Amino acid sequence: MVKSRQWILANKPTALPTLTGDTPTFKLSETDLPDPKEGEVLVKPTYISNDPAQRGWISPEAHPDRLYVAPAKTGEPMPARALAEVIESKSNDYKKGDWVFASAGWTEYAVLPAKALQPVPELEGGLSKTLYLGALGGTGLTAYFGMLDVGQVTKDDIVVISGAAGATGSMCVQIAKKLVGCKKVIGIAGSEEKCRWVEGLGADLCLNYKSSSFAEDLRKATPGPDEFANVYYDNVGGEILDLMFTRMARHGRVVACGAIANYNSMSDRATGLKNWFEVIQMRLQIRGFIVIDYLHRANEAREAFQKMLKEGKLQIEGGEHVVKGDFEEIPKTWLKLFEGGNQGKLVTEVARL
Amino acid sequence: MVKSRQWILANKPTALPTLTGDTPTFKLSETDLPDPKEGEVLVKPTYISNDPAQRGWISPEAHPDRLYVAPAKTGEPMPARALAEVIESKSNDYKKGDWVFASAGWTEYAVLPAKALQPVPELEGGLSKTLYLGALGGTGLTAYFGMLDVGQVTKDDIVVISGAAGATGSMCVQIAKKLVGCKKVIGIAGSEEKCRWVEGLGADLCLNYKSSSFAEDLRKATPGPDEFANVYYDNVGGEILDLMFTRMARHGRVVACGAIANYNSMSDRATGLKNWFEVIQMRLQIRGFIVIDYLHRANEAREAFQKMLKEGKLQIEGGEHVVKGDFEEIPKTWLKLFEGGNQGKLVTEVARL
Repeated sequence: MVKSRQWILANKPTALPTLTGDTPTFKLSETDLPDPKEGEVLVKPTYISNDPAQRGWISPEAHPDRLYVAPAKTGEPMPARALAEVIESKSNDYKKGDWVFASAGWTEYAVLPAKALQPVPELEGGLSKTLYLGALGGTGLTAYFGMLDVGQVTKDDIVVISGAAGATGSMCVQIAKKLVGCKKVIGIAGSEEKCRWVEGLGADLCLNYKSSSFAEDLRKATPGPDEFANVYYDNVGGEILDLMFTRMARHGRVVACGAIANYNSMSDRATGLKNWFEVIQMRLQIRGFIVIDYLHRANEAREAFQKMLKEGKLQIEGGEHVVKGDFEEIPKTWLKLFEGGNQGKLVTEVARL
Repeated sequence: MVKSRQWILANKPTALPTLTGDTPTFKLSETDLPDPKEGEVLVKPTYISNDPAQRGWISPEAHPDRLYVAPAKTGEPMPARALAEVIESKSNDYKKGDWVFASAGWTEYAVLPAKALQPVPELEGGLSKTLYLGALGGTGLTAYFGMLDVGQVTKDDIVVISGAAGATGSMCVQIAKKLVGCKKVIGIAGSEEKCRWVEGLGADLCLNYKSSSFAEDLRKATPGPDEFANVYYDNVGGEILDLMFTRMARHGRVVACGAIANYNSMSDRATGLKNWFEVIQMRLQIRGFIVIDYLHRANEAREAFQKMLKEGKLQIEGGEHVVKGDFEEIPKTWLKLFEGGNQGKLVTEVARL
């Protein structure tokens, strides 16, 4: 029997999740795990994926008829994807020391059926296996299918990408510029430092949305009919989306991938979309999407990324932000997502015992 | 030489257009028209089309790079489409007494080149030629291509139509139910009387958005996964669009045709769109469109409507709201569009001299 600490979803948050006050979002708890039975495996989630999407899973508004996954339940560990180490195995499929993909949530240990796990393949060239949580995992697939299938980008397009220094956005920039070869790629990010990094990834230009001149900078970067944006890959929603409606070319496409600007103001979203008429007058096409609809085509993306890596077209450096810390630090690290505190994929590395 | 009164665009309105105060939107004026020259025709616009879209043409925000027509100019007659009578002709193409389509604007008379006019064909079955401004004109084409081409509706779809008692909406209802045979057609309109009329057109149900129970009524009409809306044909924007995001089925399609709820609050739109995340989680597709992109296929729609008429599937009765009045009444009649004062197509018949 193993004792396991767990971060339990205590109260579904209506605003920014909190660890304090009368209704903390998460509570640290401890439980005794049963020994693994035949076909089960005891794992330790070591590298935990931090995703803005998790905020949606714990919203009180999340409804099983509407959300693309089962909404999280209070009293249970906060759901999360992770790379986990096999500690003890009662399955022929895995042995102690193996690495597996496990959706175990914020728990120190978990006993899971072997069939709920997937093996983590070795990566060539000394690359970190944590890339499977980001560039080579769901995040990379999101960028790939969002850009190519949903956005249908071509080399003739001018593409704007928000959240460009984030996990998905930084992959989008590279796919648009280095895989497709788009005419112009404009990133939007939250600091000068992030913007310079995004330009280093291949963006022709990256604009700091926290600058007082942002609206004007965006206007100058997309100044008229031949230079309006053909594709806007939206990771943020809110005011930037609203502003982008005014910078889209006729028949432009908006890839609605994320809306982090709204995630913490579910109940009282002060910022709506005011420029809706642009959608009509410019005949825009907006498509919301969730990467799970594309998982059956994952190999297509992975092969493209392997090829990009070989050709030196996929920059991995700086695209991962790994925070090492004790198990107790997990929620604090996750909250960095909503503070703009990370560059690229935010991964929590839980300290070994 | 003919004297002609004209309603001049005096000030571009930032809110509801007004005829009074320091900055009236329109001013009545009088001008001397030159005699028609060779190839020109003197016409009298008699049946004037009243369209919500005209509000967009006179907005101070309307920009030639963004709007789908040249924005209206102050000091010139308010633009409008009309059926006009030929008073005097210096062209071999038209003779006195002919009826023509003329985009002459709010003017009592106009001298126009013959090539800027199109003949108005006779209608069989004693139908009024004013139908060419509505059901059999741009409005009908808007409904037809919006529903079939943009919305891609099929008989398996549950379709919701806002502004269902309006010119476009009332055609949408009939196309969805009587041409396509959709599984369920739900209208949204602004009074119980309008709703009963919409149901008479073929809607399975029509909901009054002014009722205090509207949100709940809409929820009940689209209660769950198998009964969420597959297609939403949006003529209104604003709060109803925002609410509809929460009632759409996975992979549902939104046809963004109009946003009358926003047209008079361009500068300070209090109501934004707060349920944007639904676009992502339900993988919605939204397509803005303008009928001018489909004019080259107009015959396809006209033939379909003729067939529907012959088969008794297109109800014309009650679908036209003709207001007869003196030339001076034109703006007042047009403003009915924004008061919900009309059912079906609103046409102004300018009294003969």
